[in-house]
Amino acid sequence: MQQFTEPRERLLLGPGPSNVSPRVIRAMTLPLMGYLDPTFLKVMDEMTELLRQVFRTSNEFTLAVSGTGTSGMEAALVNMLEPGDTAVVGTHGLFGQRIADIASRCGANVITVSAEWGKTLDPMEIEKALKDAGQVKLLAVVHVETSTGVVQPLAPLAEIAHNNNALFLVDAVTSLGGVDLRVDEWGVDICYSATQKCVGSPPGLSPITLSPRAVEVLRQRQTPVQSFYLDLLQLERYWLTDRAYHHTASMSMIYALREALMIVMEEGLEARYERHQRNADALKAGLATLGMQPLAAKGSQANPLTAALVPDGIDEARVRRSLLGEYGIEIGGGFGPLAGKIWRIGLMGESSQSSHVLTLLHALEVLLAREGLEIASGSSIAAAHQVLAGG
Amino acid sequence: MQQFTEPRERLLLGPGPSNVSPRVIRAMTLPLMGYLDPTFLKVMDEMTELLRQVFRTSNEFTLAVSGTGTSGMEAALVNMLEPGDTAVVGTHGLFGQRIADIASRCGANVITVSAEWGKTLDPMEIEKALKDAGQVKLLAVVHVETSTGVVQPLAPLAEIAHNNNALFLVDAVTSLGGVDLRVDEWGVDICYSATQKCVGSPPGLSPITLSPRAVEVLRQRQTPVQSFYLDLLQLERYWLTDRAYHHTASMSMIYALREALMIVMEEGLEARYERHQRNADALKAGLATLGMQPLAAKGSQANPLTAALVPDGIDEARVRRSLLGEYGIEIGGGFGPLAGKIWRIGLMGESSQSSHVLTLLHALEVLLAREGLEIASGSSIAAAHQVLAGG
Repeated sequence: MQQFTEPRERLLLGPGPSNVSPRVIRAMTLPLMGYLDPTFLKVMDEMTELLRQVFRTSNEFTLAVSGTGTSGMEAALVNMLEPGDTAVVGTHGLFGQRIADIASRCGANVITVSAEWGKTLDPMEIEKALKDAGQVKLLAVVHVETSTGVVQPLAPLAEIAHNNNALFLVDAVTSLGGVDLRVDEWGVDICYSATQKCVGSPPGLSPITLSPRAVEVLRQRQTPVQSFYLDLLQLERYWLTDRAYHHTASMSMIYALREALMIVMEEGLEARYERHQRNADALKAGLATLGMQPLAAKGSQANPLTAALVPDGIDEARVRRSLLGEYGIEIGGGFGPLAGKIWRIGLMGESSQSSHVLTLLHALEVLLAREGLEIASGSSIAAAHQVLAGG
Repeated sequence: MQQFTEPRERLLLGPGPSNVSPRVIRAMTLPLMGYLDPTFLKVMDEMTELLRQVFRTSNEFTLAVSGTGTSGMEAALVNMLEPGDTAVVGTHGLFGQRIADIASRCGANVITVSAEWGKTLDPMEIEKALKDAGQVKLLAVVHVETSTGVVQPLAPLAEIAHNNNALFLVDAVTSLGGVDLRVDEWGVDICYSATQKCVGSPPGLSPITLSPRAVEVLRQRQTPVQSFYLDLLQLERYWLTDRAYHHTASMSMIYALREALMIVMEEGLEARYERHQRNADALKAGLATLGMQPLAAKGSQANPLTAALVPDGIDEARVRRSLLGEYGIEIGGGFGPLAGKIWRIGLMGESSQSSHVLTLLHALEVLLAREGLEIASGSSIAAAHQVLAGG
């Protein structure tokens, strides 16, 4: 038998997973229980109640799908869409495109409204698409595009969706717990997320919440949901009502998520958003001194994920390899049209720490100098320090 | 904020999850890494190589789906079936029915061959169904029906499938690692399982393996797979070939599964099957003295899961509640036509221990006596002891 490869301690400053609290790691080691054990059912109830608080919703229909974030995306779409339905999908990055891909696998008529990768979607174009299309079942957008670091304002789009009698579906994979998100106040009908970004738990579950309006549409479906595993009315029966067996829940992941959500609420949502903002601001101040600008315009930069333009002439893959190999720091590269052009730096959940900002800037200074970039030594760290010190 | 409910230590002798080794729990606490970190990719390779050994296959196409067992079932079906295909499905329990349900959600023409719950499927009936149907894409059966404790002989069915030019799909959720299973030797084309039964890991992943023939059929598909999350050719690109991003893998679960599979191979497959057999035999000897017979006939009783007929006049739900509340032992009840009539006692993976057999029989003796059953005190334990001692 071969020797096992030992996982390494990493500072995870990429697009996710992010680092998690030792409390969350410890929660994973709690004893396994039967999926219908009354004590375990209480754990599930506590987890869903905390999820409602973090989603800022009173939606009864709130649970976690047993899969990673993409399974939540798929659950949302296969349940809400029936063959022949029309969906308007905002695409300004990989994950909007993925929504469109999955919606078309549901047999929906998919109308995409695109923006350049790195820009926000234009509400007027979306409104026009909804009006032109006639009867639209849902409007779907990504709150924080993990491929570009852009945050999309949601409230105006919710209004447009509702004015056109469409449901409003939001991908909050990279925003939940790190960026202001108000499911009820803004009128989001379907919202899903993941655990390994700003929520602070390992990957493996996908939280999802449905407004009463979305639940009503779901109950009125004419055709069976094409997925049994992701059939939300069956998941509702297990999580929220009859406690009927559907599949064996992943206890360890549920323990971890409950603990992570508790940590979120102990910190407080506003304080947590502010922490993500402060550290992102410090990072950007530091990057600016290294000649690196964010891809996104001011005002649409997502705090959990900064997509920074790689300086000209730098071998970005080599720098990332050195960051990982020499410093144990992971950051991400770009996808699609942005491959080779951006670095995606995540400061999410536990990974959003002032010390990590300084550590990363230090390593980047060394490696970029090695690549031949002229740098005033320590300049980026000093700039970040100034922001962190309240300058 | 409410107090958290503390999970309890349980002796898990139900239909799964089963208890896991402390080594597996510890593996879950290994550091999270990026999903494309070269070190993590090595961990994935080691896991798939161990999986091949446990499946007894040389299938290159072997990986773990990021969901529980039912996600593996769905992955197998949505990838292999296209709308209009014909599938013959053996149904003699809940999970065979579930296969038929999912296959019909794929738009397939589903022909079920049924047997009474508790009996095996009749190969001649299956052969007739295949011949009558003409062109059949696949034959699907459950190896060990978790709802009935019946083990279905596979080799004759594989021959029938192949003679009729159909793929042979097997649900090995409750058999992998606990019951003799030879994917290559028997000619199984698609086989999926779960982690929380005889493999000895927490629930959260679904191992799956495809024969070259099945992969070829998959590559020839005319229509897109209806699920993006479970699209096996995309999962292949992440797990086995290009290392292209598809979704964020659940590192903690992969660490746990790798460790559990290593434990399986350290014990040895034959030794492990024998342990499952010996403890199941001891359990059944003990149950017999309490007047409890297995639902399944001799020769078709699955060692990992004994479905025992509840003695007349016993309130089975009350006994199970007392087992859990007073002894911390979980066993399962029956589903569907067997609700209230059977107990499902799992001796799977780490939970298959001689000490657990004795502990359970002791508790059952006490509780059944309380229910008014006349029992020669200690008789069941003595009978089990005799089997365990090699009597």
